[in-house]
Amino acid sequence: MKLQNYAEGEWYQSSQSGLMLRHAITGADVAEITSDGLDFKSMLDYARKVGGPAMRKYTFHQRALMLKELAKYLMERKELFYELSKATGATRTDSWVDIEGGISTLFIFSGKGRREMPNSNVMLDGAQEQISRNGSFTAQHIYTPIEGVAVQINAFNFPCWGMLEKLAPTFLAGVPTIVKPASQTAYLTELMVRHIIESGILPEGALQLICGATGDLLDHMTYQDAVSFTGSAWTGLKLKQSEAIVQNNTRFFMEADSLNCSILGRDVQPGSAEFDLYIKEVAREMTVKAGQKCTAIRRAIVPKDRMEAVAEALSSRLAKTMVGDPDQEGVRMGALAGMDQRSDVLDQVRKLAADNEIVYGSMDEVDVVGASAETGAFMSPILMACHEPIGSCVHDIEAFGPVSTLVPYEDDQEAIELAAMGKGSLVGSVITADPDIARILVLGAAPHHGRMVVLDEKCAKESTGHGSPLAHLIHGGPGRAGGSEEMGGIRGVKHYMQRTAIQGSPDMLTAITSAWMQGAERNTDGIHPFRKTFNELAIGDAIITEKRTITLDDIEAFAELSGDKFYAHMDKDAARRNPFFEDRVAHGYFLVSMAAGLFVWPDEGPVLANYGMDNLRFASPVYAGDELQVQFTCKQKVNRETEEYGEVRWDTTIVNQHGDVVANYDVLTLVAD
Amino acid sequence: MKLQNYAEGEWYQSSQSGLMLRHAITGADVAEITSDGLDFKSMLDYARKVGGPAMRKYTFHQRALMLKELAKYLMERKELFYELSKATGATRTDSWVDIEGGISTLFIFSGKGRREMPNSNVMLDGAQEQISRNGSFTAQHIYTPIEGVAVQINAFNFPCWGMLEKLAPTFLAGVPTIVKPASQTAYLTELMVRHIIESGILPEGALQLICGATGDLLDHMTYQDAVSFTGSAWTGLKLKQSEAIVQNNTRFFMEADSLNCSILGRDVQPGSAEFDLYIKEVAREMTVKAGQKCTAIRRAIVPKDRMEAVAEALSSRLAKTMVGDPDQEGVRMGALAGMDQRSDVLDQVRKLAADNEIVYGSMDEVDVVGASAETGAFMSPILMACHEPIGSCVHDIEAFGPVSTLVPYEDDQEAIELAAMGKGSLVGSVITADPDIARILVLGAAPHHGRMVVLDEKCAKESTGHGSPLAHLIHGGPGRAGGSEEMGGIRGVKHYMQRTAIQGSPDMLTAITSAWMQGAERNTDGIHPFRKTFNELAIGDAIITEKRTITLDDIEAFAELSGDKFYAHMDKDAARRNPFFEDRVAHGYFLVSMAAGLFVWPDEGPVLANYGMDNLRFASPVYAGDELQVQFTCKQKVNRETEEYGEVRWDTTIVNQHGDVVANYDVLTLVAD
Repeated sequence: MKLQNYAEGEWYQSSQSGLMLRHAITGADVAEITSDGLDFKSMLDYARKVGGPAMRKYTFHQRALMLKELAKYLMERKELFYELSKATGATRTDSWVDIEGGISTLFIFSGKGRREMPNSNVMLDGAQEQISRNGSFTAQHIYTPIEGVAVQINAFNFPCWGMLEKLAPTFLAGVPTIVKPASQTAYLTELMVRHIIESGILPEGALQLICGATGDLLDHMTYQDAVSFTGSAWTGLKLKQSEAIVQNNTRFFMEADSLNCSILGRDVQPGSAEFDLYIKEVAREMTVKAGQKCTAIRRAIVPKDRMEAVAEALSSRLAKTMVGDPDQEGVRMGALAGMDQRSDVLDQVRKLAADNEIVYGSMDEVDVVGASAETGAFMSPILMACHEPIGSCVHDIEAFGPVSTLVPYEDDQEAIELAAMGKGSLVGSVITADPDIARILVLGAAPHHGRMVVLDEKCAKESTGHGSPLAHLIHGGPGRAGGSEEMGGIRGVKHYMQRTAIQGSPDMLTAITSAWMQGAERNTDGIHPFRKTFNELAIGDAIITEKRTITLDDIEAFAELSGDKFYAHMDKDAARRNPFFEDRVAHGYFLVSMAAGLFVWPDEGPVLANYGMDNLRFASPVYAGDELQVQFTCKQKVNRETEEYGEVRWDTTIVNQHGDVVANYDVLTLVAD
Repeated sequence: MKLQNYAEGEWYQSSQSGLMLRHAITGADVAEITSDGLDFKSMLDYARKVGGPAMRKYTFHQRALMLKELAKYLMERKELFYELSKATGATRTDSWVDIEGGISTLFIFSGKGRREMPNSNVMLDGAQEQISRNGSFTAQHIYTPIEGVAVQINAFNFPCWGMLEKLAPTFLAGVPTIVKPASQTAYLTELMVRHIIESGILPEGALQLICGATGDLLDHMTYQDAVSFTGSAWTGLKLKQSEAIVQNNTRFFMEADSLNCSILGRDVQPGSAEFDLYIKEVAREMTVKAGQKCTAIRRAIVPKDRMEAVAEALSSRLAKTMVGDPDQEGVRMGALAGMDQRSDVLDQVRKLAADNEIVYGSMDEVDVVGASAETGAFMSPILMACHEPIGSCVHDIEAFGPVSTLVPYEDDQEAIELAAMGKGSLVGSVITADPDIARILVLGAAPHHGRMVVLDEKCAKESTGHGSPLAHLIHGGPGRAGGSEEMGGIRGVKHYMQRTAIQGSPDMLTAITSAWMQGAERNTDGIHPFRKTFNELAIGDAIITEKRTITLDDIEAFAELSGDKFYAHMDKDAARRNPFFEDRVAHGYFLVSMAAGLFVWPDEGPVLANYGMDNLRFASPVYAGDELQVQFTCKQKVNRETEEYGEVRWDTTIVNQHGDVVANYDVLTLVAD
């Protein structure tokens, strides 16, 4: 069988022979891989000319819904992926992370896209900026999708998740993708892409696949493209320095080597719940995916006086981890992805062993259940101990397999320094029951990490653990880890958009952003905006209400009804002793209440509910005798694709008889279509 | 006179002779420059070991206040800088941008730092993330300062602003700086640094200065450092590829070449206010700083049928711009920074002239008032016209002087394509009176720009124009412009901090972030938290209030008092027809009002005022008979350095008799120390 490429909307199989990929456990042929004959420049052009425009026709929400549909489609077919995943040496649990973890990333981005992004193609960034005295010249930052291609170059360890965690944010941004999986496990990526294409859910040109070498692909990168690389630092740094990428300042995201650490807090003694958690976590990170995880714990940093206890407990736990064919009952650790991977790992272990003592496992021997280390890429988990941590190679050598090293520390400061010696990591963890120790270690190590996890008994049950990147959270780290970020919810989407500061009159900015800007014109055409349906409402539709004079009776009555008898409302003298007030001040809660009394159209109509309020600020105190009026303006609309109503955000400004702003806030309503 | 370097807390003057810098107008010697003999590695170590820790001892607000103090100090001495600035060839207006524009950047960052950042060393990023079903494992992103050095390598055109616009965000972040000004105008930077150091305002090690070559400085960059470069793409790309920077994935920000465009909208006809604005803006951008601005308009994109009218109007305006010694009355354009700059610009003009016609000005002649083009770097403004825009070198050649080219377009789409042919620019502008045209052009060009300005009559009076970067807004652009961002308010500060996702139990995250997380423990020790002073209050201090049963009378009375008689509150049948309600629903405004009635301690005490509310969301409807209770918890504290009170944010959760959350929001109060 030869793997196919998906280029310019067609499946393509090279007539040339390619590299043969072998089963991690049996050594049998699985598939041949070659991209020979593909026209890479043409694939890029196709993505730019067909894919990009097709995708940008949809809004963020529409694309988010496609992601959901795609996730469901793939989830229904998950057993097909599990079956083929066995060839990678993975256990069912390992495959779950890759397959269902990958698909769930689509679900999470779909939900976040609809909750946290507007239903359009332009996203606001931050608040309107005051840049002129009278407000006739104002500014707003926006994000728009880049107009090129997202090229993803992935690692062999997560053939499904590796693709999907990058596809979700780029797709949501509106940017077409070319996927290049690592050869070793590309067959699984190819199978999933086959189903994605078959589903017909993605717009034409949204996705292409290269199984094999990328040829001159990166020579054609422009400043509107992005490359997202996961793999070894050596390869990543080479690609990052490609001429076109350097010359065009092409966005280049790298997630590379990482010597992640896990610190056992100085408070944690053998016998405690946290001690057991630590042993479990380190052992798990060593053996899940046979340690072929960029987030695995490579350095277990433990108090010097607990080195032996940890070594002992870990060794005894590792001894119980059955290695072999995952189809056999009781097997907890499968094979490495292939013979090349195993020999790479053993090379690194040999280098580490120069400095560090092996306390568990062997480079030469491993008990294998239901398979053989001759044909399958099995190896024993290997635990080492470092006795001279400062300057040890343990901080520089990554053995990308079931390998970890115990590193002793004296005090918190040294633990932080050792953590930082990884020169930038994806993730670090701290196991402690003491919040002070957690604070010191986490804040100390944070500048060196993209993610930090604190584990204790309280969160143990629900914790996803040290090694699991989550779609909600950034995945990436400074320095050696690549200096980039992926995922992190909408943060990851923004990496594929251009941020632009827009300046102009409030009216122009309103036209450009579809959000009403302070100072822009209001349309007060006589029809109360509550009488307009979602579709009839236009940005800027407004009502300037009647006026209401606030009386001392109002304040008294409101205090009585609400129960809020705070001294500044009730006691003239006490109010005057307060630095902000000159008299009994009206309740802020009363102001927003009476404002509703002024702006609400009471009759049944398209407005269904008030679901909240944002950014309320009281700017001037209100006293009895003040006359208030409300300016109530349609500010933003978010159409809900799956409902018969949409969200409408209203700028609400209460002004007094002097024209001073008393309060400003956004009222949030649901309005029927 | 030899310029001095400021290294490791001492002024240092090389014993070697250096490059002689000459007066832009008279050609006289101004200063000699050399950094020979400096130990660059030692300067970095000093910044890391002395400067960083000294700065991180202060909070964001404390550093912001130092910026303000520094700004005042420099503003009092501004005439010293104006005087020396004349040697750069600048007019008073040019110098104003550099000197007072630079100082005002410090003021703006000072204000934003205190308004938009917490008064600590850790900044939260985004909201708490729900990552587990029961909430016992949760997450929050934070920013912490990087622990290295910010090296700034600046361009010759803004010796003051160039330094200060980078110093402000890095200083606020808590990162020490090494400044390396461009040689040509380094004397002005040196003078300002001298006054900064003299002021004694900055902590020791916060600032060092290299006048001259940087030697092996960049060879010692680590992943905790950052380089911020402004200058030519050629130099920038070379530095970006320095081995240490590549290998360590050192943060590298570049602001380089930019062929900025300004588009005259197709609606704008000669004789209109916008037409006049366009002529004024293009002419101004050509002549201010003698066109030596990275944001200057290099391509004036105009409707094909208005090429002549624009050329004519611009030529006649340029003809009135007096060139010469700025000390002479009436002079509006000074000299270029030096003879080398002039010959560079003329070289570029010659290249442009191969493709484009010169319609105003001359490469060989210029009328100079009060000085001579023999000794001073004067040149004439040069306006060109491009007749075949597609493929013209006008999109690739930047003449960094008083040079601009008219480029014709047929329709909006072509205008956007031409704008994009700059391959990434710092800024583009659109002059139009038509909001639809503004929307089309701005959104079309936005992916290719860091900033877009819309100019029309409405904003003309207050507009800062096409070419002015503002501290509030990002400055930078994709592609050729360098692919980076500077400033943009707090956005620019974040570039010098590491973003880290923190996971753990809500209690641990509360301890780490100093912000109360949903699900964390509450301290309900019996003392009402309103009775505690700002300093006594601890994060997590809370009150669980008495319960209150909502009655139909409450709803009726509230409707009467507020005036809000929306049908869902008043009419049972209408409420039932609404998709969300089963009965007459209590007003959301009543819920927050009666909640205050439950949580407020009424007597005079440390709580001074309620200044607002954030993120209010109603989660379940409340009907008559429901029994409500409030959980009111101290969530965040921001101490105000200059006041006797601080800001306290309270998590406020209203729950009903079933334990369902009815509403959640933050109440904002001011509490006396």
